[in-house]
Amino acid sequence: MVKKLTTKQLLNKLKDVKLLLLDVDGVLTKGEMIILDDKKNIEIKIWNIKDRFAYTMLRKANLDLKIGWISGRGCRELEIRAKELKLDFFYQNVKNKLEVYKEIISNIFLKDNEVAYIGDDWLDIPILKRVGVSICPKDAVSEVKEVCCYISKFDGGCGVFREAVELILKAKNKYKEVFSIYNI
Amino acid sequence: MVKKLTTKQLLNKLKDVKLLLLDVDGVLTKGEMIILDDKKNIEIKIWNIKDRFAYTMLRKANLDLKIGWISGRGCRELEIRAKELKLDFFYQNVKNKLEVYKEIISNIFLKDNEVAYIGDDWLDIPILKRVGVSICPKDAVSEVKEVCCYISKFDGGCGVFREAVELILKAKNKYKEVFSIYNI
Amino acid sequence: MVKKLTTKQLLNKLKDVKLLLLDVDGVLTKGEMIILDDKKNIEIKIWNIKDRFAYTMLRKANLDLKIGWISGRGCRELEIRAKELKLDFFYQNVKNKLEVYKEIISNIFLKDNEVAYIGDDWLDIPILKRVGVSICPKDAVSEVKEVCCYISKFDGGCGVFREAVELILKAKNKYKEVFSIYNI
Amino acid sequence: MVKKLTTKQLLNKLKDVKLLLLDVDGVLTKGEMIILDDKKNIEIKIWNIKDRFAYTMLRKANLDLKIGWISGRGCRELEIRAKELKLDFFYQNVKNKLEVYKEIISNIFLKDNEVAYIGDDWLDIPILKRVGVSICPKDAVSEVKEVCCYISKFDGGCGVFREAVELILKAKNKYKEVFSIYNI
Repeated sequence: MVKKLTTKQLLNKLKDVKLLLLDVDGVLTKGEMIILDDKKNIEIKIWNIKDRFAYTMLRKANLDLKIGWISGRGCRELEIRAKELKLDFFYQNVKNKLEVYKEIISNIFLKDNEVAYIGDDWLDIPILKRVGVSICPKDAVSEVKEVCCYISKFDGGCGVFREAVELILKAKNKYKEVFSIYNI
Repeated sequence: MVKKLTTKQLLNKLKDVKLLLLDVDGVLTKGEMIILDDKKNIEIKIWNIKDRFAYTMLRKANLDLKIGWISGRGCRELEIRAKELKLDFFYQNVKNKLEVYKEIISNIFLKDNEVAYIGDDWLDIPILKRVGVSICPKDAVSEVKEVCCYISKFDGGCGVFREAVELILKAKNKYKEVFSIYNI
Repeated sequence: MVKKLTTKQLLNKLKDVKLLLLDVDGVLTKGEMIILDDKKNIEIKIWNIKDRFAYTMLRKANLDLKIGWISGRGCRELEIRAKELKLDFFYQNVKNKLEVYKEIISNIFLKDNEVAYIGDDWLDIPILKRVGVSICPKDAVSEVKEVCCYISKFDGGCGVFREAVELILKAKNKYKEVFSIYNI
Repeated sequence: MVKKLTTKQLLNKLKDVKLLLLDVDGVLTKGEMIILDDKKNIEIKIWNIKDRFAYTMLRKANLDLKIGWISGRGCRELEIRAKELKLDFFYQNVKNKLEVYKEIISNIFLKDNEVAYIGDDWLDIPILKRVGVSICPKDAVSEVKEVCCYISKFDGGCGVFREAVELILKAKNKYKEVFSIYNI
């Protein structure tokens, strides 16, 4: 069992983070696979509006921080959303997440401790064990909770990303600045 | 932290309210952004049937009270519903909610203390800090809870609007009259 | 506040019931109004599979009991389901539920105490105050809870109808017989 | 009331299991029947992403274990998913589940104690009373909970299958091996 960080320790580690990577299903969504029983087997994605505002917060903060999604599954809606949100990295239908992770950080010359990752299931463990800050939703599977240094206050799809972004803003002393835009 | 009002204080303040403005996502819905992964990226909106009956209650009460929605996002379904419910004000895809708010109240010659607003996220804070009665859902973000003078008993999409309407009816001594229509 | 019945009193009253009427939204569903934002504004209905099995139980019990839905709203899916389930009565887009109720019981020569009704909102109160057995979901609005003689263990859309049917089977000494079909 | 097994007793019984059969609605889904109100009355199925990974775990474990679904209802999406997951057995629109069960085990020469079954409602009881390991979701109806030897920690559609698969892997001494693939 990885020791959980105190808020102070967590903020301290997040100071160095230059890349935030996310699993999608079960982190940005509730982990539901919603399918229409028609000829095209269309999928439905349910995103969280509070998470969505976190991208705006990041833009306003203008941090030296890249954002990416690594999804084991894929669909057109993911692509559309990734483009709209101007993600720095977007990989879908990924069989081996660790490989993708290694490729990304070597391409942009980052070290493990400069990366934060949020994942909820076994497929995410190889990355979670390497990154500087490993985070999971409150309803992640038990093996993932064990290897993470921080467990979110929120279930998957219910604000995990928002919480992580606010912590990063606090760590990088940008939270008050961004909040002041709205606190008028 | 804004001091929370007692029920008596709240009813007292609501007496003067002539305009009730609402954020949509996270207030009238659960804050889910539900998208179909087909060619048209159709959105799905989930409204609450108990909230819906509140519009009927307002019509029966025949109050001197205007109702409006100010939504940061937009879609056809919002328009259709806004028309069907005969809202007095309806703004969607709003970038700056405060501007819209100021425009509305100046157009109808209202003062801040004559307005109640329900919002759940940072974008709503500039309005929440100005209006006479600031309300948020139980699951609003913490910064919003801090600036509101009343926190609803309900989560977003689960009856926040209904509760607000019942409080307004009580404040304006119309609750018993409207209820008596059904309590037969 | 109507006095709540003990289980024994409830079963005693249900013995005489020959008609079970139901509101739909918020009783057979969670009270969500789910709308697709496309050109046709298609609605989505979410039914409960445990409730659905209750119709099978009723068929097996072969009781002298009629079933009906009285819905304030309407859609094609309601009609299709009402036909499929072979409901004895089905009314949709009902503005005045009490009128419909009176029409039904006079047509089949029933007295109020021979009827059970399940409803969750103000529109249902006029019927709930007349029938022999008034039931509401656990998440009904407070005014409805006050006038009902039994509050279900379940929220709307989560098994309220199933519970009512099992209680009726028990009251009419048919529960064991029907259960024995499956308890093999 | 069937005596509930301790974890040790449960693992001991699961050692012998060569076939895991599942009900679908209420076990692999939350028991919602979701219908689009358009001309085709399309159904929507909501699967759980954590359950889905359990099929991968089973493939990696390469056990002598067959998997099957027996569903009282049916739709195209069920077929598509059953094929995609390469289920050994798939029956839909089943009126008499016990018959199907008997056919399956006689065809592959299994005894009752070599079968585990997960079900949540009365229709499942005849099988649950026969198999070696009877499991139900935490939100199964009370009569089903009574006849099962193990009640899952999860509600239907929220990880019941995943939990069962992990227990089987543990019983058959394969859990650590499969987990080690990801615990790198």
